[in-house]
Amino acid sequence: MNYFIGVDVGTTSTKAVLYDDKAVVIKQFSQGYDLFRDSNGMAEQNPEAMVEAVMQVIHDAGQEIDFTTEKLLAVSFSSANQSLILLDDKFHPQSRVITWADTRARQAADELKRSPLGREMYANTGTPIHPMSPLTKLLWLKKTAPEKLEAASYFGDIKSYLFYRFFNTFKVDISIASCTGMMNINSGDWDAKALEITGVKKEQLPEIVNGTTQAIGLTDEAQAKMGIPADTPFVYGAFDGALSNLGVGAIEQDTVAITIGTSAGVRVITDHPVIDPQERLFCYAVDNGLWVVGGPLNNGGHVYQWAVHHLVTPSAVRNEKTDPFTLANHVIEGEPTGANGLIFLPFLGGERAPLWDANARGTFFGLNNLHTRGDMLRAVMEGINMNIATVFYAVRDLVGTPKSVTATGGFARAEVWRQMLADVLNCPVNIPESFESGCLGAITMAMKSLGMVDDLSAVKNYIGEEKSYTPNPEAVEIYSKYLPLFQQVEGLLTPAYSTIAKLQQK
Amino acid sequence: MNYFIGVDVGTTSTKAVLYDDKAVVIKQFSQGYDLFRDSNGMAEQNPEAMVEAVMQVIHDAGQEIDFTTEKLLAVSFSSANQSLILLDDKFHPQSRVITWADTRARQAADELKRSPLGREMYANTGTPIHPMSPLTKLLWLKKTAPEKLEAASYFGDIKSYLFYRFFNTFKVDISIASCTGMMNINSGDWDAKALEITGVKKEQLPEIVNGTTQAIGLTDEAQAKMGIPADTPFVYGAFDGALSNLGVGAIEQDTVAITIGTSAGVRVITDHPVIDPQERLFCYAVDNGLWVVGGPLNNGGHVYQWAVHHLVTPSAVRNEKTDPFTLANHVIEGEPTGANGLIFLPFLGGERAPLWDANARGTFFGLNNLHTRGDMLRAVMEGINMNIATVFYAVRDLVGTPKSVTATGGFARAEVWRQMLADVLNCPVNIPESFESGCLGAITMAMKSLGMVDDLSAVKNYIGEEKSYTPNPEAVEIYSKYLPLFQQVEGLLTPAYSTIAKLQQK
Repeated sequence: MNYFIGVDVGTTSTKAVLYDDKAVVIKQFSQGYDLFRDSNGMAEQNPEAMVEAVMQVIHDAGQEIDFTTEKLLAVSFSSANQSLILLDDKFHPQSRVITWADTRARQAADELKRSPLGREMYANTGTPIHPMSPLTKLLWLKKTAPEKLEAASYFGDIKSYLFYRFFNTFKVDISIASCTGMMNINSGDWDAKALEITGVKKEQLPEIVNGTTQAIGLTDEAQAKMGIPADTPFVYGAFDGALSNLGVGAIEQDTVAITIGTSAGVRVITDHPVIDPQERLFCYAVDNGLWVVGGPLNNGGHVYQWAVHHLVTPSAVRNEKTDPFTLANHVIEGEPTGANGLIFLPFLGGERAPLWDANARGTFFGLNNLHTRGDMLRAVMEGINMNIATVFYAVRDLVGTPKSVTATGGFARAEVWRQMLADVLNCPVNIPESFESGCLGAITMAMKSLGMVDDLSAVKNYIGEEKSYTPNPEAVEIYSKYLPLFQQVEGLLTPAYSTIAKLQQK
Repeated sequence: MNYFIGVDVGTTSTKAVLYDDKAVVIKQFSQGYDLFRDSNGMAEQNPEAMVEAVMQVIHDAGQEIDFTTEKLLAVSFSSANQSLILLDDKFHPQSRVITWADTRARQAADELKRSPLGREMYANTGTPIHPMSPLTKLLWLKKTAPEKLEAASYFGDIKSYLFYRFFNTFKVDISIASCTGMMNINSGDWDAKALEITGVKKEQLPEIVNGTTQAIGLTDEAQAKMGIPADTPFVYGAFDGALSNLGVGAIEQDTVAITIGTSAGVRVITDHPVIDPQERLFCYAVDNGLWVVGGPLNNGGHVYQWAVHHLVTPSAVRNEKTDPFTLANHVIEGEPTGANGLIFLPFLGGERAPLWDANARGTFFGLNNLHTRGDMLRAVMEGINMNIATVFYAVRDLVGTPKSVTATGGFARAEVWRQMLADVLNCPVNIPESFESGCLGAITMAMKSLGMVDDLSAVKNYIGEEKSYTPNPEAVEIYSKYLPLFQQVEGLLTPAYSTIAKLQQK
């Protein structure tokens, strides 16, 4: 039998999925590592720990293969989209991996966003001006620690660093490059203006290659630690969001992919770059001639977790021997659409798309004497979905009305969520029965790289059964009255967010 | 021994308190009656049932007196401030008593308020343009049932109707007249413009008399039913809010009276009429040379009841054998001032002062991942007090900074409420240990009427011990940062209230 290994390098762990050459999952492996956080907004990883973890999961997956009779066709990579690592002239790390979740570049991002240059940089790169991006992280370092910038010879991300460690070559796929805020979305090369304002030279950045590019010839150390043949092709792949779209078959612009995990995401793949005049959406390259447009949302399932934790009575749950989420879903099913006239803005953790306001906070609006805790629970789930709908509509307005949505993520498991999403979006929602979408997307790129498929759309053959949810016209009618109010209240409260965020810092 | 009976004619019951001539409470009596409500906003009373109830409580109080050796010096009246009753030419009721709580005049009030005439009428009468007032109720009837207005010979309120039934004389005290929206606050007579726009003639309204005016000579029927001497002086008194100020000794403009019952009220007595350029406050006459300025708030203790009902876990309460309010107060005491950066607007039932917006609704603003149900509970109590503070500040800005606040009402019983009120207002708060403030105010007017005291301030001799709460400087400092945000959010959300109210009607 022949195999692929799909590797997904995440924020707190790396996962490897061993597939056969028909993309059937054989076995999964995982290795965790620390995310170093402190109160200043730091969110860093130890690069050495990540190199070790990635080599370990590949090693473990490789142990399943009998290399005397079987072949590992390729290893292909998905990774978190944004990170920055400073390297010296020998490519030794001069910093930890500063992740997308690190918010210390907030002030630099705010300043850039408020200047006319901010709009220009977004239009050039498709990357929203936000502390998540390497562009704003470099501007932050330039202002607060210029000596560190001076001392660095190269500026990489976690994927280019991993590949350097495995192959002594400093390259990055176009999709990861595109998320940095440093790549021109039209030329596919590093953006002159981005280089100018950060003071970084093009030679200090990795070479941009297509995601189907192979690296071959593992270093001795990497080969020894992974225990796989040195000539195994490693395919660069893309960033996790883009590969997740591939992995659920949402690879044309008639299908929008929505993920509701702890956070949430809305993404659609297009055949041309799409820049949002209102700067709500990202546009990143995926591969030759493919882009992904969408928005990342901070406030997904963790908001529901918060509500269930505080609005479901623990002892009632104990007595009924039901887990609180099941109980909450049951309560919500019993509540009317619209929660009897209650609006919830889910911005517990600030918000990226559609607001891009780290100071945003959550709001219940419209409480009256008759509202119950059950209404509040339902309003929370509706509010999370309405916020997702706001990004969905932004995508729809720019890319066109999709035929359907494919939804994945842990919080898309409950029936009440799935139907509510279809109703709020007024769009059919399909749920793949099982998926490891990021890794499946990655090995599809490997298949294309190896010439085994002509087109990435071949991935559709590997996706299992889907379950479909059709919008309920009555609920659609009701939500069509709530959504404008949700958006009105969202707009009205914007001027108060910075003050409340300041009060909460004490 | 000699006695007074203080009678307080309320919305759902009438209370009589028997006092000796030193204002010591001997015994209390009460009679309930229905408040007829339906979904259209009706809130009516049966006038005959009220006459019977009032006669009954006076009868019961009179039974305590041995009229062979003792004397009932006077009966004096407190009553709800606004009501309307249509009478025919023989003073027979042509309608039930349409109470202040009846909101069917909402549209008429909205129209008047939006017109330049609305501002003029408020300035003339001191009565906010609101469905509570007889002025707007007459405008509503003129528009929707002109035949009823045509058919009526007289327009009274519950107190003038009671006195008519007892004495065949159609008069009303200046304080009740002043609350109708029909009396000119400067002249003390019916307002020409109010008569013009309602189409009511001055002769159809009761004669306006001072609150210390006596009626003597009970009708045979009234005398028989009450079982007291026919020559007992009945003193008109005033409306309950004004008498409540008297009854707690808040009779000069250095002392603001605050009541927190189901709803709430802020009132201060002044020696001149005070008209609020922003139309947030009422200004009603109390007696010769005395006016009362303040605001009635819908959202007092009932909002806290709502929060305790929905945010305190019932089973936890059962286990601990503690009532939920005690538990909630305890939770709130354990939370930091400011509820970790959470704002609550308490407008569950619309709001009168300071917003005068029946469509207003409640809001939690500023929720983040770390907020708990305990934070929400504390934010509710703080929000109720901040709303009261908004009215308090409006009073302060117009009348001057008071030396202290005297607080009464069922929700002022908990220590945490009392201290929080002092902290939010940044003003010392005194709590009378025991009080029947409305009835005590009423008999003080009777004493003045009888020449037993020179001045209403004599009431201070009859008030028991007070407990005092001094603002805590640290809490004052914190609330001084929260209050502007509370008011900002209140202002920001105003445009969304009509839409949410409409959504809740379905």
